[in-house]
Amino acid sequence: MTPPGTGPLDDARLELWAPAGLGEVRPGDDLAALVGDLLAADAARSGVPLAEGDVVVVTSKIVSKAEGRVVAAADREQAITDETVRVVATRARPGGPPLRIVENRLGLVMAAAGVDASNTPEGTVLLLPVDPDASARALRAAWRARFGLERLAVVVTDTAGRPWRDGVTDVAIGAAGLRVVDDLRGGLDAHGRPLTVTVTAVADEIAAASELVRGKTSGRAVAVVRGAGRFVLGGTGPDGDGPGARTLVRTGPDDLFREGTAEAYARGLADGRAAAGTAPGRDG
Amino acid sequence: MTPPGTGPLDDARLELWAPAGLGEVRPGDDLAALVGDLLAADAARSGVPLAEGDVVVVTSKIVSKAEGRVVAAADREQAITDETVRVVATRARPGGPPLRIVENRLGLVMAAAGVDASNTPEGTVLLLPVDPDASARALRAAWRARFGLERLAVVVTDTAGRPWRDGVTDVAIGAAGLRVVDDLRGGLDAHGRPLTVTVTAVADEIAAASELVRGKTSGRAVAVVRGAGRFVLGGTGPDGDGPGARTLVRTGPDDLFREGTAEAYARGLADGRAAAGTAPGRDG
Repeated sequence: MTPPGTGPLDDARLELWAPAGLGEVRPGDDLAALVGDLLAADAARSGVPLAEGDVVVVTSKIVSKAEGRVVAAADREQAITDETVRVVATRARPGGPPLRIVENRLGLVMAAAGVDASNTPEGTVLLLPVDPDASARALRAAWRARFGLERLAVVVTDTAGRPWRDGVTDVAIGAAGLRVVDDLRGGLDAHGRPLTVTVTAVADEIAAASELVRGKTSGRAVAVVRGAGRFVLGGTGPDGDGPGARTLVRTGPDDLFREGTAEAYARGLADGRAAAGTAPGRDG
Repeated sequence: MTPPGTGPLDDARLELWAPAGLGEVRPGDDLAALVGDLLAADAARSGVPLAEGDVVVVTSKIVSKAEGRVVAAADREQAITDETVRVVATRARPGGPPLRIVENRLGLVMAAAGVDASNTPEGTVLLLPVDPDASARALRAAWRARFGLERLAVVVTDTAGRPWRDGVTDVAIGAAGLRVVDDLRGGLDAHGRPLTVTVTAVADEIAAASELVRGKTSGRAVAVVRGAGRFVLGGTGPDGDGPGARTLVRTGPDDLFREGTAEAYARGLADGRAAAGTAPGRDG
C-alpha cells in the first residue's frame, strides 16, 4: 500500500477499494456508526487504516435508507411529482407513465427526480436524501473524530444519465471536506499559456471512479479513495467542510438546456401562433 | 501491488497510476512506441509491469499531436466549422465569436467541436483525432504484441462539459479491448428485483478516474488502470477490440436535447408565426 501522498499530484497514484460486509441499512440506523464499523473492520483485516487525505464515498441509497426516505412503490409517480421543482423533458413510454426528466429540489436534473426503485425493499421506492451535503458533513465529523484524522472528505453519490451519451455514471450529490472542483483558471499549461479548459469537476470524477470499484450488483455501497489528497480539506466549519456538491449544480441563465428540445419547440410554437394571432401576418 | 483480479469484482480494488516522462509528442511520432517506452521505463522503475486486464488510458491530445491534427490558431473558428456536423446551441461571448456547442463528425456534442487550444504549441490549436476508436485499436495491437499480453484495453479520453453540472470531466472518445458499458439489463439487484438503472458507461468512468490521477497541468498524458479487468477483452478483431467508444454516442430520436432551449424555442416561434400566418387565428 502506498502511503498517502502530500505533493501536488500525490505521486500520480490513486487507489480505491470497496469493503464488503455492510448489512442492509434500515430507517433510523446510525449510518456513521455502521459504515465506521465497516471501515474499522476492513482496516483490521487489511492492516491499512484510513489515512489523512482519504475520501470515503457512500451511495445516496444507504444515506436515504438510514434517513427513512422510503415510500410505497404505488406512490412512485406522486413521489416524483413531490420531488420535482420543474419538468425539463418528458418521454412517452409504452405501457406506463411518461418518463419525466426534472429538476428536483436539490437542483439535480435527473430522470424520475432521482426516485429509485432498484436495491430497495420490496414494494418501496427511495427518495434522495433530504440534504446530501449535510449528510456528508455529519459523516465527515463523525469519522474525523472516530479515526483521529484531520484531513478527511466524504462524498455522497448517485447514478444519473447524461444528454448525448448512452449509459449512466455516478455523480456527487453531497460532499464535505472536499474541493469539489479543481479551478485552474489563471493557471498555465505546459507551454506557459493560460488554460482554457479550466474547472474540473473533481467530486464527479471521484464519484465515477468509485462506481467502478463498487459496482451495482455487489451490495458494496462504500468505497475509499486514496491519492486525491490534494483536494481534501482539514478542519471544521465552512472552511473545513468546503463548498459542498450543491455548488456543482448549474441552473438558471447559464443552463442552455433548461428545457428539452421538444418542450422548448412546443412553447415557441404556441407563442408564435399566439403572437401571430394578435398581430396576424406579422413576421409570418 | 495487488495482482490483477479475475473475479467478478476484481477483489473490489482499483489502482491507477500516471507515469511521468513522456516528452512533447510531435506530428509523425510513433505514439505506440513512445508511450510503450514510457510504460516499459515505468515498469522497470517500479518493478510492476503491465498485466493482463490492465487498461492504458491516453489523452486525445497526444493522439492528435502524433497524427498531426494541428492547425493555426488564426483558423480556429474555421476549424470548428469544419469539424461541425450540426450546431446544437450557441452562446454570445463578449469580445469574441459566440461559443458553439456542436455535434462534431465523431458524434460528440462538445463546445467548440472539441477543438482544443490549451497545451498546444504556440499559435496552434488541435483537432480531435481522425478516428479515436481506430487509434485505440492500433495502440492496443502494438502493446499486446510488445508486452505479450492477451487481455489489454486502451481508452482515448477527452475533456467535456455537461449540461446541468458545472465543471468538466473526462469522457472516453476512443476505446479498444473494452466492454465500454456494463449492461445490467436483465440482472437482479441485491433484493432479487430487476435492475432499473441498467447500463453503466464504464469507459467514461475509467476516463474520469484517469483524469484524477493525470491532472491537467502535469504534462502526464498516460495512465494505467488496474482492477477493471472484468471489462477487458482478449483476442483480436471485432470481438477482441469490442464495440468502441463511438457506441456511447447518443444522437437521433433518443436525444431529448438535440437543440438548446433557446434554439428550439426560436424555431418553434418562427414555425408558429408561419403557421398562423397561413391560417390566421388557428389555435391562436
